[in-house]
Amino acid sequence: MAQQTNDQIQRIEPASWWIGMKNPEVQLMVHGKNIAELSPQIQHPSVSIKQVHRSDNPNYLFIDLNITSSTKPGVLVINFLHAQKAMGSIDFHLQTRRTNSAQRAGFSPRDAIYLLMPDRFANGDKGNDNQKNYTDRLARDVPGGRHGGDIQGMRQHLDYIAKLGFTMLWPTPLMENAQAINSYHGYAASDFYRIDPRFGSNVDYQQFVKEAKSKNIGVIQDVVLNHIGSQHWWMQDLPSKDWLNFPLQYTETNHIRSTLQDTHAAQIDKQKFADGWFVKTMPDLNQRNPFLAKYLIQNSLWWIEFADLSGLRTDTYSYSDKDFLARWSQAVMEEYPNLNIVGEEWSMNPNIVAYWQRGKQNHDGYRSFVPSLMDFSVYQALHASLVGGYGKDADMMTMYEAIANDFIYADPDNLTIFEGNHDTPRIFSALNEDIALNRLAFAMLATLRGIPQMFYGAEILMTSPKQRDDGKVRGDFPGGWEGDHVNAFTGKNLSVAQQEMQNFVTRLFNWRKSTTAIHQGKLLHFIPENNCYVYFRIHDKQKIMIIINRNEKSLQLDLTRFNEVLQKPHQAREIISNQNLVLEKMLKVDAKTAMILELH
Amino acid sequence: MAQQTNDQIQRIEPASWWIGMKNPEVQLMVHGKNIAELSPQIQHPSVSIKQVHRSDNPNYLFIDLNITSSTKPGVLVINFLHAQKAMGSIDFHLQTRRTNSAQRAGFSPRDAIYLLMPDRFANGDKGNDNQKNYTDRLARDVPGGRHGGDIQGMRQHLDYIAKLGFTMLWPTPLMENAQAINSYHGYAASDFYRIDPRFGSNVDYQQFVKEAKSKNIGVIQDVVLNHIGSQHWWMQDLPSKDWLNFPLQYTETNHIRSTLQDTHAAQIDKQKFADGWFVKTMPDLNQRNPFLAKYLIQNSLWWIEFADLSGLRTDTYSYSDKDFLARWSQAVMEEYPNLNIVGEEWSMNPNIVAYWQRGKQNHDGYRSFVPSLMDFSVYQALHASLVGGYGKDADMMTMYEAIANDFIYADPDNLTIFEGNHDTPRIFSALNEDIALNRLAFAMLATLRGIPQMFYGAEILMTSPKQRDDGKVRGDFPGGWEGDHVNAFTGKNLSVAQQEMQNFVTRLFNWRKSTTAIHQGKLLHFIPENNCYVYFRIHDKQKIMIIINRNEKSLQLDLTRFNEVLQKPHQAREIISNQNLVLEKMLKVDAKTAMILELH
Repeated sequence: MAQQTNDQIQRIEPASWWIGMKNPEVQLMVHGKNIAELSPQIQHPSVSIKQVHRSDNPNYLFIDLNITSSTKPGVLVINFLHAQKAMGSIDFHLQTRRTNSAQRAGFSPRDAIYLLMPDRFANGDKGNDNQKNYTDRLARDVPGGRHGGDIQGMRQHLDYIAKLGFTMLWPTPLMENAQAINSYHGYAASDFYRIDPRFGSNVDYQQFVKEAKSKNIGVIQDVVLNHIGSQHWWMQDLPSKDWLNFPLQYTETNHIRSTLQDTHAAQIDKQKFADGWFVKTMPDLNQRNPFLAKYLIQNSLWWIEFADLSGLRTDTYSYSDKDFLARWSQAVMEEYPNLNIVGEEWSMNPNIVAYWQRGKQNHDGYRSFVPSLMDFSVYQALHASLVGGYGKDADMMTMYEAIANDFIYADPDNLTIFEGNHDTPRIFSALNEDIALNRLAFAMLATLRGIPQMFYGAEILMTSPKQRDDGKVRGDFPGGWEGDHVNAFTGKNLSVAQQEMQNFVTRLFNWRKSTTAIHQGKLLHFIPENNCYVYFRIHDKQKIMIIINRNEKSLQLDLTRFNEVLQKPHQAREIISNQNLVLEKMLKVDAKTAMILELH
Repeated sequence: MAQQTNDQIQRIEPASWWIGMKNPEVQLMVHGKNIAELSPQIQHPSVSIKQVHRSDNPNYLFIDLNITSSTKPGVLVINFLHAQKAMGSIDFHLQTRRTNSAQRAGFSPRDAIYLLMPDRFANGDKGNDNQKNYTDRLARDVPGGRHGGDIQGMRQHLDYIAKLGFTMLWPTPLMENAQAINSYHGYAASDFYRIDPRFGSNVDYQQFVKEAKSKNIGVIQDVVLNHIGSQHWWMQDLPSKDWLNFPLQYTETNHIRSTLQDTHAAQIDKQKFADGWFVKTMPDLNQRNPFLAKYLIQNSLWWIEFADLSGLRTDTYSYSDKDFLARWSQAVMEEYPNLNIVGEEWSMNPNIVAYWQRGKQNHDGYRSFVPSLMDFSVYQALHASLVGGYGKDADMMTMYEAIANDFIYADPDNLTIFEGNHDTPRIFSALNEDIALNRLAFAMLATLRGIPQMFYGAEILMTSPKQRDDGKVRGDFPGGWEGDHVNAFTGKNLSVAQQEMQNFVTRLFNWRKSTTAIHQGKLLHFIPENNCYVYFRIHDKQKIMIIINRNEKSLQLDLTRFNEVLQKPHQAREIISNQNLVLEKMLKVDAKTAMILELH
């Protein structure tokens, strides 16, 4: 943090920046009583003040710095003058970037993502469970209370995650959330530049990412652009009158995402969707305000650079102003052309999701730069194909048709597919606690196109009600707390079924890690017959055949149907059972069983 | 028909053509024993033989004629020679086109289409019910039998259709179907150039279209490009070995339309879809054969020109070869740039339907030239929004979301919307015989964007089982047969409910006929609240407000929500009740009631 030598200056954000960014400019938000009366001044050979802006609130100043690439790292002193008289100064830190920071690789189909809620994963440091001035205190028995999980807890179990076969970790937001209740989930930030002290410090976070990288795990930061928490410091003194949407009269979003694409939608409905609030405790940001837009863009860049991130996940993606989203995603991708960002557009309509992906030719000319979106259509199909839904029986055609829609997307291979997340029922529960179906779901998750994402605890069959119940979905991971009877990290007291699932996931994702045809191979699929879905992943000479038999009976599969791939009898290794077999005319596939065959 | 002066020449198709077509060439198919041995020759100042082709069957000759625009109408004699010796000749008729034939206007959103099955509408000529050499004879008590309806029956009731407010008539196919059973439906042609004599003659058809036009009703011809009937004359002597798909081993289509768009689909699945047969009695045509492709294109042009059609409806659209479909639709639209064609792509997925519409930018560069498609997505939504389905309750959001998908289409205003057809359950039955819901369906049909199409008998609440049952869906129209106890044409013995529905349809579609805002006005819709869907059609100063209240209770609608249209209190006329009212802050809408308000 910047050293403040004058009480009038209460805050500067960001308090540091980097030399050699593609965009040499950074805009500082300075907050202080009547700060707008002062004029900032610097004396520096290669950094200059390009422009100073004032808003309609005299307690804010916005300073545009230009940092030329020849700048040396160190402290930049910014003086504040009133009628030529120095009233105080702040230190701003100019830092050197890591080697190749700009060219860092983001998560990709080579990876598998482990999603966890830090508060619910492992309590590595009991000392930080409660903090002075934070009223939402430890309450493990309250579903919406803080349970004590933290950065130290994640750090202690990086080996566990790596061993499972995951190469990316997506923790739900870690930013300070000073809310009175439900602060554990992290989606109501009170400070965009500060890790919540109940999770750890900014430096703890930085160290955690570094250690994760050393174990070949990248970290994806969960970014919220749409809203803040009602305890955000801005709420005491808004930077401008138009900082929030619907500032005077609470108006809830209608959640109808399609209003943004719809050529027939009423203006009032579009506005309510994008500008309406999620809940009363989450003020909705008006990103049409240019200072706020710049603030949010810079904040994302700051964390990538500071913490050395491998990507971003953007919460409630389309709820922000869409022109801002285009600029935000463009700015991030211009600084980090190989990074990845996955947007959450919670729609089962692939057209609505496809609209936001980089490269999509949209009807209205809208250009997004987000490389990945959460694939809710395949999520829905994963469940519907295995247990039915929407008035239909379980039918593998549902998955086939979801995948057949890929022509809608600019880049289906870069979609993030998932079995569930912190807002959905636990998959094992959704699949009626049927172990065989659960294995089918994971076999598809690991072998379909896209980037697979699993929710923590799915590997040990954690359960929840089938209807949304956040507190129960976000259960404590067994072994994360001292004295836990069951410890999934060590295997202590796991049931046989849990152990088997953990082994199954470990086997599957470790195999996936080194299987190029899954990362970048062509997907070729056949119309399901007898509720059995067969597809191939093909890359150069590597061919993988995946058989998902949803049928309640074992089948004799006539392989001649797949002649366009299987031109000759093949030797094959089935990677789940680790058995070798020879594929000739007929292949027996057991009931509700997946086979993943490496063809030789 | 051409006069054949030699027994060797059994058939020539087409037997006539027109002078002044944009494409001056026409290819004649000549069939006769060893005809390929002969050489055709003509002596004409402005018509020449451009090329002569032979297939792998010596009984066929294909002659490309070039008819220059200066040609005079009359008979062209084509001589057939063998070693310079004349073996016979045929007369080919060169005809003058109607004034403005090329610029004819096709059906459009200004129109409403009445779909009927000729065999089931009215038996105007009992004398043609049975015909020598046609084994499928009159059998009114057999659901799949011929019931005797004919062209004369349609002709006699043109006034009835006009009075209902319809301006277009789509009869299911009238071509000769010499099948032993189920010939009544007409989708299994045995001769592409001949009206089935049990319906009437080619000239009867021509006269019928002329008379319809005089009553401001255009006729849309139902075209089948995909298949023929097993009794087609070709089946005795196929023009070439590759005339049919899967000629040797009967293979059924898999009906999976998405294989054509799907970038992951297996070749075998694509091939089975497009080349597989519908049923054993409908051989599947291989339009990759260039003679067949040209034959089918010319056949469509011939009927437009001969019968003076206002458009085409194309059966089983995507089941034909897709490259052929592009050429077929392009050729028709090049000859008649203002015509309309509506393709039947029976998919609820709007992306699959949108692929085939003219102007759509497709992922694979495919270009279609079909201006209209049947809107199955809105069809599904019409039912689902009113009575639910797919595990959901009735919810007007279903219709809202279907319309919100319009951004997918190149030209949503030119889609054909419908309440049902000869392949679906009767709408009144699908809506649980609920009169109020039925009125809501028709209010939407008449006011949403697109070209509305109604199935005959819906105006008098004809019923059917809810599950597909062709024989019962295609019931005889009461009054179409001598001695019918009920006569819907005269109103005799109709129930009060039937009369009311007939009046409702009459009122609605006659009003629509002169309401420009419905034909070309912008559609602006609002997210349904309390299961009440409100939308506007706006053209210049004409504003129509449509309220579809699916709620089981009456509602007080707060009109301030629609301020972006209703800037001031409006005088309004409700067109169903023909009542005037003043729109102020609140409007009472009765339970399950539609209001259609002309705003003044």
